[in-house]
Amino acid sequence: MPNGAQILIDGLVGAGVRVCFANPGTSEMHFVAALDDVPQLRPVLCLFEGVATGAADGYGRMTGHPACTLLHLGPGLAGGLANLHNARRAATPLVNVVGDHALRHKRLDAPLESDIEALARTVSGWTRRTYHAAELAGDVADAVAAAAGPPGGIATLVVPADVSWTRADGPTAAARPPVARRGLVSVDAVTGAADALRSGGRTALLLGGEAARGAGLTSAARVAAATGAKLLCETFPARLERGAGRPVVERLAYLASGAQRQLAGVRHLVLAGAASPVSFFAYPGQDSALVPEGCAVHTLAAGAEDVTAALEGLAEVVSPGASPVRAEALRPALPTGELTAESAAAVIGALLPEGAVVVDEANTSGIWLPGATAGSPPHDVLTLTGGAMGQGLPLSVGAAVACPGRPVLALVGDGASMYTPQALWTQARESLDVTTVVFDNRSYAILNLELRAVGAAPRGPRAHPLLDLSGPSLDFVALARGMGVPAERAATAEEFGAALKRGLSEPGPFVIDCVVPALG
Amino acid sequence: MPNGAQILIDGLVGAGVRVCFANPGTSEMHFVAALDDVPQLRPVLCLFEGVATGAADGYGRMTGHPACTLLHLGPGLAGGLANLHNARRAATPLVNVVGDHALRHKRLDAPLESDIEALARTVSGWTRRTYHAAELAGDVADAVAAAAGPPGGIATLVVPADVSWTRADGPTAAARPPVARRGLVSVDAVTGAADALRSGGRTALLLGGEAARGAGLTSAARVAAATGAKLLCETFPARLERGAGRPVVERLAYLASGAQRQLAGVRHLVLAGAASPVSFFAYPGQDSALVPEGCAVHTLAAGAEDVTAALEGLAEVVSPGASPVRAEALRPALPTGELTAESAAAVIGALLPEGAVVVDEANTSGIWLPGATAGSPPHDVLTLTGGAMGQGLPLSVGAAVACPGRPVLALVGDGASMYTPQALWTQARESLDVTTVVFDNRSYAILNLELRAVGAAPRGPRAHPLLDLSGPSLDFVALARGMGVPAERAATAEEFGAALKRGLSEPGPFVIDCVVPALG
Repeated sequence: MPNGAQILIDGLVGAGVRVCFANPGTSEMHFVAALDDVPQLRPVLCLFEGVATGAADGYGRMTGHPACTLLHLGPGLAGGLANLHNARRAATPLVNVVGDHALRHKRLDAPLESDIEALARTVSGWTRRTYHAAELAGDVADAVAAAAGPPGGIATLVVPADVSWTRADGPTAAARPPVARRGLVSVDAVTGAADALRSGGRTALLLGGEAARGAGLTSAARVAAATGAKLLCETFPARLERGAGRPVVERLAYLASGAQRQLAGVRHLVLAGAASPVSFFAYPGQDSALVPEGCAVHTLAAGAEDVTAALEGLAEVVSPGASPVRAEALRPALPTGELTAESAAAVIGALLPEGAVVVDEANTSGIWLPGATAGSPPHDVLTLTGGAMGQGLPLSVGAAVACPGRPVLALVGDGASMYTPQALWTQARESLDVTTVVFDNRSYAILNLELRAVGAAPRGPRAHPLLDLSGPSLDFVALARGMGVPAERAATAEEFGAALKRGLSEPGPFVIDCVVPALG
Repeated sequence: MPNGAQILIDGLVGAGVRVCFANPGTSEMHFVAALDDVPQLRPVLCLFEGVATGAADGYGRMTGHPACTLLHLGPGLAGGLANLHNARRAATPLVNVVGDHALRHKRLDAPLESDIEALARTVSGWTRRTYHAAELAGDVADAVAAAAGPPGGIATLVVPADVSWTRADGPTAAARPPVARRGLVSVDAVTGAADALRSGGRTALLLGGEAARGAGLTSAARVAAATGAKLLCETFPARLERGAGRPVVERLAYLASGAQRQLAGVRHLVLAGAASPVSFFAYPGQDSALVPEGCAVHTLAAGAEDVTAALEGLAEVVSPGASPVRAEALRPALPTGELTAESAAAVIGALLPEGAVVVDEANTSGIWLPGATAGSPPHDVLTLTGGAMGQGLPLSVGAAVACPGRPVLALVGDGASMYTPQALWTQARESLDVTTVVFDNRSYAILNLELRAVGAAPRGPRAHPLLDLSGPSLDFVALARGMGVPAERAATAEEFGAALKRGLSEPGPFVIDCVVPALG
């Protein structure tokens, strides 16, 4: 008769879960022991919980299926919450398995006791605690179904230690739950959007979620080509398909002033899988809504609806014969001389391999990347959906586990990289083909911009050090090598080009400490 | 007229807060700017939120007064929660200042929007959101008062960005709130404890909280000397005073079997600032309560009560003339040859300087430390109160900021160190006199013990890698240098002795990669 941990793992495997990003503790030891009998579930050790959750996010974004995490009680879940916040914003399918004290141990208020469900509910669409081993098969099937969506989301299952170690009858392999279909949008939503886009004024189509890729993106581009609508994508898409031969779509700018310019004069804005755009932060004396006054907003499809089908339908209505505008194959020349965020972007655009998965947490150093890579071979971009720093390196782990045949390029700011540097160790442990570029400008450069944007006083001798990462400078070559990842420093465009070629051509992980001046 | 951020900082300073461990973002930029005008509040930048909260814990444990943190919305607080869990278990006074979106921005569900209060309440005794700048002076005074206790605790103040940037009248410097006194215990509690300890059977006195130091500890030792009671301290005290000339007290063992041996045959157990002892985890077929059958438990003083006064009173009742048993000055000889957790402990015992603050997150590698340092010069020990890994390095930052004249020795397991390695950068930035020993046994050794303790099957080829930190091995010398901290590797007892002498004698931080075999 299997124990609860074995039932749980059989259930995960039966429901199609293939990878477990784990940072276990004592209460998860039966789960760990049970892994030996189930080769279908690949355990991947992460040295910090935020790496595990961010990796599961990257895996879910690339496969569309949930990975699971394995976390140790409330504090373990807490360590993973920031990247779960990002995953929630990305609508990523993801199952957390959180071990807990044995039920009879709960009332004793032992040191690790805490309110796990309260933490879980802040990021999860589905949260449950299993009280009996016999109920695990059903609970894990429900968890995976809840995570799968639509839309995808986070399901957190809390498993007390005694539930894991107790033996029970019952189905040892849960049936793979039926995949729920996205709801179809109404005919009115389609005709309303079509009427708006053909009304004569300036119009725009804002894509989000699944509309940023595949058939949805192509249909949207056909609509734009036929109606003259500006084709925009949300600022931080979970996964955007772009590059040579793919439809051209512009991301809404991060800074409110930029987004306002993109939307200026638009009379009708059609939302396809995206929310009505608002600024990332509020600023004194500025409106947070980005939709211009007098612009009518039309929802073609909301997050849980079938946005791809809706866009296909819309394309048939407004543009049965239109062809989308596709990006030309056009790479920048390999630059020489000074290494800056701009010349680094040109190097990346010149060398980006076909099929790359680009993880972008480069923040201020990334502003030239979309332009420099627009005509590079087709690639996917995963972005910082929830604004919680420390997402890039963990995402790269999950993307590489999900897509073993594809090169992964992680582009991260120096500040951002230091929230979850432990991801590099897992890259090395699993021999993942990730090339990481750390934009080393020795500052929280984005906060220097924001300090001005919010109208705060000029920085002085006490405030300045809080935005400055020099004194001491971080040596990312040493940090990477300390975690088993080969690394090089680049201080000129030529050095960066040579290092990037090496990183992309060699199997396994590689880190480039890309020394650039801070923006502004 | 000051803005909210200035009122907030004036209030913190007025209430006696002197240090802010910060990882700010856009919504905290007015706070950052306002720091320039207030030299009484020292900002300390941390590159990850868990470093900031753990440092504030260390500071509060050593000074008895709260430091504040500065965190960025829900995800920033989330990153700091694991060490806040530890701080809550330590009853450390600590104030979190968590920035949030402007109030008018909240309803727009921007990417960083989340339920901050739900997170905060899982660790905080006091949580409040300020809605008007004019209310900040009162709110910050309330926050500091709530944190100060008794007992100490976590107070979390959520400050929306527009509250920070709005100007307001009102008191710009809050009065320092009156310090609440701990409640006195009843005469019955004292006489009940006295009667129990003089009842003739085996007895024990279990100390926790403030009873682990100062006058309370001395009085407890007098009681033990007079009555023959065994003098025990909770397994993970927030701060324990020990060493040559100080009262001898034994910590309750972590493993249930060890604790049961310590308590075997005890007929009366008197609790002084400690909870009735329970095992850290539950194990199949074992009872979680550690108190032997038939043992009566008496509470002399609970957490919020004046345990020091209660112990002084008890000592006057049972032992007006008794002298405490004090540790003799007796160091181990400096060992030679193989470097093991045991010989490393002897090196530490031989070299520990007077007045050291020892931060102990060495886990399995630390089991010989109490014995080896029992007769070393007087020192304080800060332990892993809540069981959430990644506490040691951040605690060392806070202890060093709190006690600039005292050497800090951080003893951390390799696995534990990797949850919050960013603390080393702050050690370097602030030139803190911390010597860090990483016990590098290349495994989660404690989980190998626990795997056996819970009766899980022997580890196989898929489970084993989840407890193993080799492949690749972590190079702590490279990691430390990468964050600006000088470092050395020690592979023999002699090398470790030389490295520890160097670390303790030089100012500023130093890391020793102490290569030892895993226990067991």
